Amino acid sequence: MAKETKEGITVSKEKDFSEWYTQVVTKSDLADYSPVSGCMIFKPYAYAIWEKIVATVDKKIKKMGVQNAYFPLLIPEKLLNKEKEHVEGFSPEVAWVTHTGKSKLEERLAIRPTSETIMYEAYARWIRSWRDLPLRLNQFNSVIRWEFKNPVLFLRTREFLWNEGHTAFATKKEAEKECTDILNTYYDVLKDLLALHSVKGKKTEKEKFAGAEYTISTELFMPHGRAIQGPDAHHDGQNFAKAFGIEFLDEKEKKQHVWQNTWAISTRVIGILIAAHGDDKGLVLPPNIAPNQIVIVPIIFKKEGEKVLKKAKELVKQLKEHNVILDDRDYSPGWKYNEWELKGVPLRIEIGPNDLKKKQVIIVRRDTGKKEIVKENKVKEVVHKLLEDMQKNLYKQSEKIFTSKKTKAATMSALQKVIKQKKFAEVHWCGETTCEETIKDKTEGAKILNIPFEQPKKVSNCVCCKKQGKHQVIVAKSY
Amino acid sequence: MAKETKEGITVSKEKDFSEWYTQVVTKSDLADYSPVSGCMIFKPYAYAIWEKIVATVDKKIKKMGVQNAYFPLLIPEKLLNKEKEHVEGFSPEVAWVTHTGKSKLEERLAIRPTSETIMYEAYARWIRSWRDLPLRLNQFNSVIRWEFKNPVLFLRTREFLWNEGHTAFATKKEAEKECTDILNTYYDVLKDLLALHSVKGKKTEKEKFAGAEYTISTELFMPHGRAIQGPDAHHDGQNFAKAFGIEFLDEKEKKQHVWQNTWAISTRVIGILIAAHGDDKGLVLPPNIAPNQIVIVPIIFKKEGEKVLKKAKELVKQLKEHNVILDDRDYSPGWKYNEWELKGVPLRIEIGPNDLKKKQVIIVRRDTGKKEIVKENKVKEVVHKLLEDMQKNLYKQSEKIFTSKKTKAATMSALQKVIKQKKFAEVHWCGETTCEETIKDKTEGAKILNIPFEQPKKVSNCVCCKKQGKHQVIVAKSY
Repeated sequence: MAKETKEGITVSKEKDFSEWYTQVVTKSDLADYSPVSGCMIFKPYAYAIWEKIVATVDKKIKKMGVQNAYFPLLIPEKLLNKEKEHVEGFSPEVAWVTHTGKSKLEERLAIRPTSETIMYEAYARWIRSWRDLPLRLNQFNSVIRWEFKNPVLFLRTREFLWNEGHTAFATKKEAEKECTDILNTYYDVLKDLLALHSVKGKKTEKEKFAGAEYTISTELFMPHGRAIQGPDAHHDGQNFAKAFGIEFLDEKEKKQHVWQNTWAISTRVIGILIAAHGDDKGLVLPPNIAPNQIVIVPIIFKKEGEKVLKKAKELVKQLKEHNVILDDRDYSPGWKYNEWELKGVPLRIEIGPNDLKKKQVIIVRRDTGKKEIVKENKVKEVVHKLLEDMQKNLYKQSEKIFTSKKTKAATMSALQKVIKQKKFAEVHWCGETTCEETIKDKTEGAKILNIPFEQPKKVSNCVCCKKQGKHQVIVAKSY
Repeated sequence: MAKETKEGITVSKEKDFSEWYTQVVTKSDLADYSPVSGCMIFKPYAYAIWEKIVATVDKKIKKMGVQNAYFPLLIPEKLLNKEKEHVEGFSPEVAWVTHTGKSKLEERLAIRPTSETIMYEAYARWIRSWRDLPLRLNQFNSVIRWEFKNPVLFLRTREFLWNEGHTAFATKKEAEKECTDILNTYYDVLKDLLALHSVKGKKTEKEKFAGAEYTISTELFMPHGRAIQGPDAHHDGQNFAKAFGIEFLDEKEKKQHVWQNTWAISTRVIGILIAAHGDDKGLVLPPNIAPNQIVIVPIIFKKEGEKVLKKAKELVKQLKEHNVILDDRDYSPGWKYNEWELKGVPLRIEIGPNDLKKKQVIIVRRDTGKKEIVKENKVKEVVHKLLEDMQKNLYKQSEKIFTSKKTKAATMSALQKVIKQKKFAEVHWCGETTCEETIKDKTEGAKILNIPFEQPKKVSNCVCCKKQGKHQVIVAKSY
């Protein structure tokens, strides 16, 4: 038997989240650092997760009538400068191409931080009449935003993968309906695929997307007390339409500007997935997103080895819809258990000579660690049930993190205390940016995440200025 | 009825291929130019074709054991410089990032022209033992190569989409087997999906990939007498392994360098597809690659309109596996016929009040233009047969272009004549680069495309130096 060793996770999630996170990501073979600071390598295991997210989003948005396309990676500087707020938001982080081969370019080219400007230049040429609307295009690609904060694999990187939808409608009403539909779609992807609880709401003026009329977002809550923004959707009103001259003749032959949206889900959600579900043994993957739902570990002794292996192979066939791994490498069973736990495979099936005799297998769940002896003829049925249970259980746990750490705060000192305790504060707010900024200052950086769509009937006074509040909001430290 | 007009193709493919090509690409809504010279926009119609190619290649390579991953877009200059031939081949076309935000970078970053260098830096860290091999990774992404020749949509652009496979094996034998398998896979994609005939062979030393030991390629032949290189595969030997220090301990605990391959299919094949099959009415799409295989045009008169439309909708359901379009817009049938012919939809089904009475439809094939009256209850069966026939017929036509234009040339003057006639010359060659260069000089730029795997039993004297020839090769002007 091979004597290779592989170190497991050496710190606890609760005691040192940041070290725990890095160990899980790198040791479970999801990702690696690259020689370009802040840019990461998505290894096959993480990329397989991303492919599942892409396939799911792709199917959903195509069903809604969105089409995929591909626009150039490089954007001329003058195009990027067309929408004032947009360029102010993005230019501090733009990577600039200035030379090609040995020649200096006449005009600098930005690597897309997002593609509004390169797409809307074309929209302005393509859209002529109401018949050309809606125009709903999406791209799956990568973008570069040269952040200067400390990078964190998946969660804060200078390059990330995403989808970016950019749509144009004849009316504000249609555009706003799409914006909501898309956010609901993303919410469902978080819930059903990634087993992640999130809170939908509207971003504050201060936190909205650069160039948007407003932004709606999903906000997620991590066990170590930080919030992370999930996928979002922006209603751009006619801001870009006016900056780029995207006009159409309506049915009455009247010239109008289009109404637009922008929306995205990124590989950041993989980081959220890891942070939310992982435990001290490593990754825990919800069955619906796991590249492999089951690993079968045959316990092979010389004598009975062949028979056990034969049975294991039968099981692989029987369970093939679950993308089963058969681990028949010459490592010890214990070593294998550790490895697959580290990688977060939802179910492990153990089968040895004794089980063979008793016509049974042992099934172990990754989330609870619970072992179950299952009769051979019941395996399919039990596997199905366990996977369903585990998906539900992980969602419930994710929800529980939020509900158990959410604490009301009516005064600034109460708010400060909640944030210090690494909890999420539910506060009332007057809606003024000055109070929003004061909250941030007095809590050492906690932010209003969004204004949840679900609001109480009555809102009390603002936690900051004590005037009548307008919204109930959640304040937390976030990535 | 709407009075919009859309101009068809105004030049003939035979008389002015280049103008014809541009018109087909832009008028059929496949692609558009962008404000960045040489970079193009892949509109949804072209992107849907690319998605089909990606899905097919993805499935085939995954079945072979290749995994997808994603490596950073940006490559530090010193990494790009590690393999001498490689950097010499690519650096004249590299787009350089020198600034981010307002800061100047300490080291320039190249936008990947190809990813060997950024991937192999990681391979050197990841590969330790024979147990880690083979390592077979692939990416679907875009690359930038800042060519200075005149751009042609799809065929010669500064950014294109592709797959890039980069693999490492313990033995040369395994690596070479993969290299051949991959080329055969690409050949099948060209043949079965795109209905394109190609010639497999080995590139000459002069034309091989920068950094490879040898390159094997598919070469395709266009009706206007130019050749285009299709997807290819490179066996890199241990060149990169030595430059990047990719070593492993073999089963006898001996240190060895890995053996590597690199392989790619790009959006260039969409250009080949257009050039090969299109006609004076526009695009002709082989059924297997067409985003929509059938368009149904109901002939709607006031009285019988509803009935006709109802029947058309029934047909859509019946034929849904073919991704049918129902064109019930208020344009004239003739206008619609032109539009769908321009877009190359394989089959058109016309149905009017008369057909309804006679329980029949009219089916028109895009490649031959042949009309057929088909009884309602036979539609499914006939459609199936016609699509199959059309796919085969287009492949045969593509093959015929090659065989009908391929002409033997035993002397340099015969060769010059063949090239002037815009044909493909089959010549014998001694294998020396000097003769290869002379051929190019004396034919105003015609090249040896590759050394076909299929060789005659006896090879005559070199067309250039008259010494004993080594190979039969095909010489043509190419993109």
